[in-house]
Amino acid sequence: MPDDLSAALQQRHAGRLGAVEAMTKSLAAARSEACSHAWVRDFFDSALLHARQCDELQAAGLPLAPLAGLAISIKDLFDVAGQPTTAASASLTDAGPAAQDGAAVARLRAAGAALVGHTNMTEFAFSGLGINAHHGTPLNPVTRPLDGLERIPGGSSSGAAVSVATGAAWAALGSDTGGSIRIPAAFQGLVGFKSTAALTPRDGSIPLSTSLDTVCAITRSVRDAVLIHEILAARRVAILPRPLRAWRLALVTEPLLLDGMDATVSLAFQRSLQVLRQQGAQIEEISLPCLQGLAALQAQGGLVAAEAWAWHRHRMQELIPMYDSRVSTRIQRGAAISAADYIDLQALRRDWIADMQSDLTGFDAVISPTVPVVAPELAPLEASLDAYMATNGLVLRNPAVVNMLDGCAISLPCQQPGELPVGLMLWSTAHQDDRLLSLALQIEAALAAGVQ
Amino acid sequence: MPDDLSAALQQRHAGRLGAVEAMTKSLAAARSEACSHAWVRDFFDSALLHARQCDELQAAGLPLAPLAGLAISIKDLFDVAGQPTTAASASLTDAGPAAQDGAAVARLRAAGAALVGHTNMTEFAFSGLGINAHHGTPLNPVTRPLDGLERIPGGSSSGAAVSVATGAAWAALGSDTGGSIRIPAAFQGLVGFKSTAALTPRDGSIPLSTSLDTVCAITRSVRDAVLIHEILAARRVAILPRPLRAWRLALVTEPLLLDGMDATVSLAFQRSLQVLRQQGAQIEEISLPCLQGLAALQAQGGLVAAEAWAWHRHRMQELIPMYDSRVSTRIQRGAAISAADYIDLQALRRDWIADMQSDLTGFDAVISPTVPVVAPELAPLEASLDAYMATNGLVLRNPAVVNMLDGCAISLPCQQPGELPVGLMLWSTAHQDDRLLSLALQIEAALAAGVQ
Repeated sequence: MPDDLSAALQQRHAGRLGAVEAMTKSLAAARSEACSHAWVRDFFDSALLHARQCDELQAAGLPLAPLAGLAISIKDLFDVAGQPTTAASASLTDAGPAAQDGAAVARLRAAGAALVGHTNMTEFAFSGLGINAHHGTPLNPVTRPLDGLERIPGGSSSGAAVSVATGAAWAALGSDTGGSIRIPAAFQGLVGFKSTAALTPRDGSIPLSTSLDTVCAITRSVRDAVLIHEILAARRVAILPRPLRAWRLALVTEPLLLDGMDATVSLAFQRSLQVLRQQGAQIEEISLPCLQGLAALQAQGGLVAAEAWAWHRHRMQELIPMYDSRVSTRIQRGAAISAADYIDLQALRRDWIADMQSDLTGFDAVISPTVPVVAPELAPLEASLDAYMATNGLVLRNPAVVNMLDGCAISLPCQQPGELPVGLMLWSTAHQDDRLLSLALQIEAALAAGVQ
Repeated sequence: MPDDLSAALQQRHAGRLGAVEAMTKSLAAARSEACSHAWVRDFFDSALLHARQCDELQAAGLPLAPLAGLAISIKDLFDVAGQPTTAASASLTDAGPAAQDGAAVARLRAAGAALVGHTNMTEFAFSGLGINAHHGTPLNPVTRPLDGLERIPGGSSSGAAVSVATGAAWAALGSDTGGSIRIPAAFQGLVGFKSTAALTPRDGSIPLSTSLDTVCAITRSVRDAVLIHEILAARRVAILPRPLRAWRLALVTEPLLLDGMDATVSLAFQRSLQVLRQQGAQIEEISLPCLQGLAALQAQGGLVAAEAWAWHRHRMQELIPMYDSRVSTRIQRGAAISAADYIDLQALRRDWIADMQSDLTGFDAVISPTVPVVAPELAPLEASLDAYMATNGLVLRNPAVVNMLDGCAISLPCQQPGELPVGLMLWSTAHQDDRLLSLALQIEAALAAGVQ
């Protein structure tokens, strides 16, 4: 991992990397063809100014801030002082500039981040594909050099992942309601850590589902995920120094998590299990029948539809022609949900979480493919609504389990060089974040060792 | 206060009051004409058995439990092992026996309470009057000797208050969703403490409104309220030893809290303010315009209707003929509330609470009449649905503010001997319980001194 944020910070501290020098490289990537459609609006000028000031302060002998003036991108869901926030929706084009940073953005800025731009996303974050009808869809910059095909970036945090994969940003602030951090991370060979939702602040961001939204980030390594989470959550992560063999992992054999794997994902997933077992990991196959309860929780569009409809319904009356209909029709499903249905859903969710927690007692984490397929091609999804809906359901299927669980999860790349990116997801119940990150550091190292 | 639970416990410890001796007196009261309709089912035999065992254990030199085998009554909303729980509804007559105590009941029993019976209540706790169509309405036992009229007990914890007022129980477990503890306490000259909802457990009870329900108790004194709250909340209350003059009280002048007082309440309330000021209390008149926001929060029946409907809707299809129509029609208002309305209501409530907290900063508590009228006569309310609805709204008006605020409140008697009971309510924001109880001890003493 020579090229992650942590490595860059070491170089910054050692005086071997100037802020302007680093920013110049980031901005060259940000302006490159690989980053096409990655930005809804850029802050390139102010980012460079910020880097220049960092170098001046450093030259004057002042200590470096934690993020040392390095480039961080912001999903167009979070307020940035002086900029509009538009959730990549044409219906918000008239939004005025935000008076102040959203809470998560403020924490990044206070830690010395140089904000490089608002990244593109699925409109209002309501799909896992990353397709955007208004701003164009960024193509997957990682798969294209491998097979030449135009594949989707994954979403909803599409531009966020592209900014990190291309080197335009060292990390990307995003949100995860059903996989919106983990899916693009999996499709682009990056690390996506969805913390327990309550740990990070949502003030100053546009909500999708108040019950499920999590503010989190895409990074290039697990150690970077720890670093950024510590800033976003304003807390220290306690890393447990346990060897790989000391962890107990569950391989849940339910079809809901394992069905539909394509050959690339299946190969990478099975090989990863083998590598981890060879290095001593205890991976036990278990059945998790309460996963069947998910269907009832997601009927009628579930909490997401109800909560999205509550936010959108008044503005939609006038602005619906400006919505992507693939987004608006799913939001409108919430109109049919009654208060009693919603209250029942919340109660059902609480009971389901308790059942899941009970069944997972004794395991440090579950191991699953993040998404059962590699990044699909864009054109067929644009051409067919049925394909869009079916593929959207498929890519969200596994990650969304963890949001419903109110849990934490991390997606790690597990492909080998030259293969299309595949995500390996480790996940657990609420507030097991430090345990999960500790384990992920071990797994990341074991997978890297397995490649050599 | 020679005759409260705390005094009885002192006598029990001093060996001057046996458990059977105390229980015999309690059961005589429980069987008296004044307690007619106070019980949905009695546990008199097992209570006496429990008392007998307490005396045996004490005779064998074992230490007394905190409640020392004294009589405590349980609202028919809480599971008692081996007994059905019917919420005083004919629709639950077939309920089987509970397998175990509800959480609050279990704490009382573990503290050595002798449970004397399930008390009568408004069906499903959904009215502040205490009228019950199936089990009969207990008459107010405190007012009747004063003026001979048949007045209502107040509700929904009607039998709970009657059990304490008559001496059948030393304290009564109940619930307060919009005033159901404080209204009967006010009408019967008792103390009703509604704690911050989150402090006491609701497992094993029938809900009315999951957002607003509070498990709490009716007692004869503030010190008893502290004692019972400590058991129900499994925590210690920290009493602040500050003199009356050190507290800052707000007298909110909005009509919403002060309109419609009858002559008795007005006289008692004004006299109480005068007595407290004479003894050094700082009482400042303030305006609280955000009280106007309550109307929007209570439209369509608000959170109570939505949440009650969620619980009742499936069973109501079949059982509605068995409901009191004055209850069922208000529950059915929840059918018209959409998930989006409900989500908006919850958000509106959070904002309203923040506004109220902001406006009340710097005050230790607000002082209001608990209910603007003394206990009304029963017959006119039975005769007219309009009178029932109007009076129900009037008695709930002030107490319900505190449930919406997620706050804490205590109603203290403030009438003089020979006058009909009047409640003085002190209330504050969430988790100010210890402060409020500390103040209430001072106010109770000051009012007692003022009488002499």
